[in-house]
Amino acid sequence: MQKTRLDTARIRAALRVIDPIFLDTPLYRCEALEPALGCAVSIKLETANPIRSFKARGTEIVASRLTDLGDRSVVCASAGNLGQALAWSARGRGLEVTVVAARSATPVKLDRIRALGATLELVDGDHEAARERAAAIARNDGIRLLEDSLDLETCEGAATIGLELVAGEPSFDTVLIALGGGALATGVGHVLKEMAPGVEVICVQPLGAPALTRSWQQRRIVTTDTTDTIADGVAGRFPIPAVLADLLVVADDAVLVREESIIAGMRLLVDHAGLVVEPSAALGIAAVLEDRDRFAGRHVVTVVCGSNVDAEAYRRWVAPPR
Amino acid sequence: MQKTRLDTARIRAALRVIDPIFLDTPLYRCEALEPALGCAVSIKLETANPIRSFKARGTEIVASRLTDLGDRSVVCASAGNLGQALAWSARGRGLEVTVVAARSATPVKLDRIRALGATLELVDGDHEAARERAAAIARNDGIRLLEDSLDLETCEGAATIGLELVAGEPSFDTVLIALGGGALATGVGHVLKEMAPGVEVICVQPLGAPALTRSWQQRRIVTTDTTDTIADGVAGRFPIPAVLADLLVVADDAVLVREESIIAGMRLLVDHAGLVVEPSAALGIAAVLEDRDRFAGRHVVTVVCGSNVDAEAYRRWVAPPR
Repeated sequence: MQKTRLDTARIRAALRVIDPIFLDTPLYRCEALEPALGCAVSIKLETANPIRSFKARGTEIVASRLTDLGDRSVVCASAGNLGQALAWSARGRGLEVTVVAARSATPVKLDRIRALGATLELVDGDHEAARERAAAIARNDGIRLLEDSLDLETCEGAATIGLELVAGEPSFDTVLIALGGGALATGVGHVLKEMAPGVEVICVQPLGAPALTRSWQQRRIVTTDTTDTIADGVAGRFPIPAVLADLLVVADDAVLVREESIIAGMRLLVDHAGLVVEPSAALGIAAVLEDRDRFAGRHVVTVVCGSNVDAEAYRRWVAPPR
Repeated sequence: MQKTRLDTARIRAALRVIDPIFLDTPLYRCEALEPALGCAVSIKLETANPIRSFKARGTEIVASRLTDLGDRSVVCASAGNLGQALAWSARGRGLEVTVVAARSATPVKLDRIRALGATLELVDGDHEAARERAAAIARNDGIRLLEDSLDLETCEGAATIGLELVAGEPSFDTVLIALGGGALATGVGHVLKEMAPGVEVICVQPLGAPALTRSWQQRRIVTTDTTDTIADGVAGRFPIPAVLADLLVVADDAVLVREESIIAGMRLLVDHAGLVVEPSAALGIAAVLEDRDRFAGRHVVTVVCGSNVDAEAYRRWVAPPR
């Protein structure tokens, strides 16, 4: 395999600093989903933990390194899950966290960030405005900026999911990974391509937030002026060149899915698997729904990466009034 | 501690024959639930596996022993979860399974039992009628009858949850356990009372299906003529004397909760923890809701024991049309 920025020995070493509550998450076949999808489906469930997403795998590494360095403060931009994870990891270690988020971010995510004791700063505009503001705070205050997907800890944390996927004899053909900033896809993809190269790595992004997928397809950075998707966790406009470079090494494909497929995926997951998921976590199922022929007879794993949804919005999407 | 029918060494040994996919399930603090409940709450999640309940811990032991003995067939009565679990455990070992269930059982549970390859026989009447019929089949056909809660494997399987609860330094004061036939409560309770005797074991049953709780309270078998609860997994009328004897040793309390509290518990779990659960799995939360003063400031663990619900019924309970 061509090199990426990641190193499997470092990823293994990271396992020692991540709270076990975030590790060895359930991986199981979900046959009740299969008639609707036409392929074998396994779930890698990243929501049964105190912050309901995979992001703490990375923030545990960050917070541990900050503590080792004697740093006391860190700032990040977040659509909501990274901020919760960083706040959780920092709280136990006495670190100060500032999270910058768009005012329009999912309210329950913002509530949880506050409840976990972080300072929350809201900005007008979208996630890219939050990224700018977080960078400015880091410069002005001279504190560590945690940049999702750019900073290796975030990719290494996600990559520990890959180690768990290949720990058994992989019986699956394909892993479907939500694509946002790229940490999850490059992290998991790196481990799969190094340790189980026959397994196909497919990234899935909403049609309404296609920047990194378009970039992967054109092998150069493509930005968009806006995003338009309910999948708040993956709605970026400015891909990071170093992340794209890694993604070009590890991804076998990157596909875009429609909003109605994301909602159909959320509905299938709750009705047939009993799983409440946030829109980003339904992207893999959405990809199968949009291209059943491609997956027919195969065995896919979909990483259910988060379940932080507003109850109200969730009901509107999944169980509209009849 | 007084003796029960269980033996911790046997329970430990059972870990070797249970498919790891059912073991080491998530145990995590869920702070988002806490403002509504007034106490610290941790979830022991038994639903993230191929059959969406804890029951396979026991059926793995049963199926393994049947295989060792050269037995090829087994029959059980089930409200739906035991039958799924036994069908799953038997399928991989080439055993023939007959499941007897009430015609009125939860349809999705019956569908899954069929999908897993078991022979399903439906009877008129309730779960007690299914128990009678299963016993008759076993007698007539000369095959093994698996009786939930009476047969030690079912209690030992459940007891492995107890081992996982005490594996760390328990930080909780109380474990809330759904009470049906009694396997879950006596199994988990046995391990807790032996290894962490300071932890309070509270059993929770619906007011509409109170037989075993009344029996515990009166220290003698009390039966009821009917049951009336949405918690299909715990709706028995004829407690088993040997199970009551064990329960009298290991339970610190047994309480009854109203249907509206069960529904409120299901709603809290989905809205604040993102967990779809079947009614039986919300009994612990219901108990806290009914007696906040008792639990104020304490740290409770609730065993989320199953998530097999009909999507339609679930929506009717949890998100009634507004």
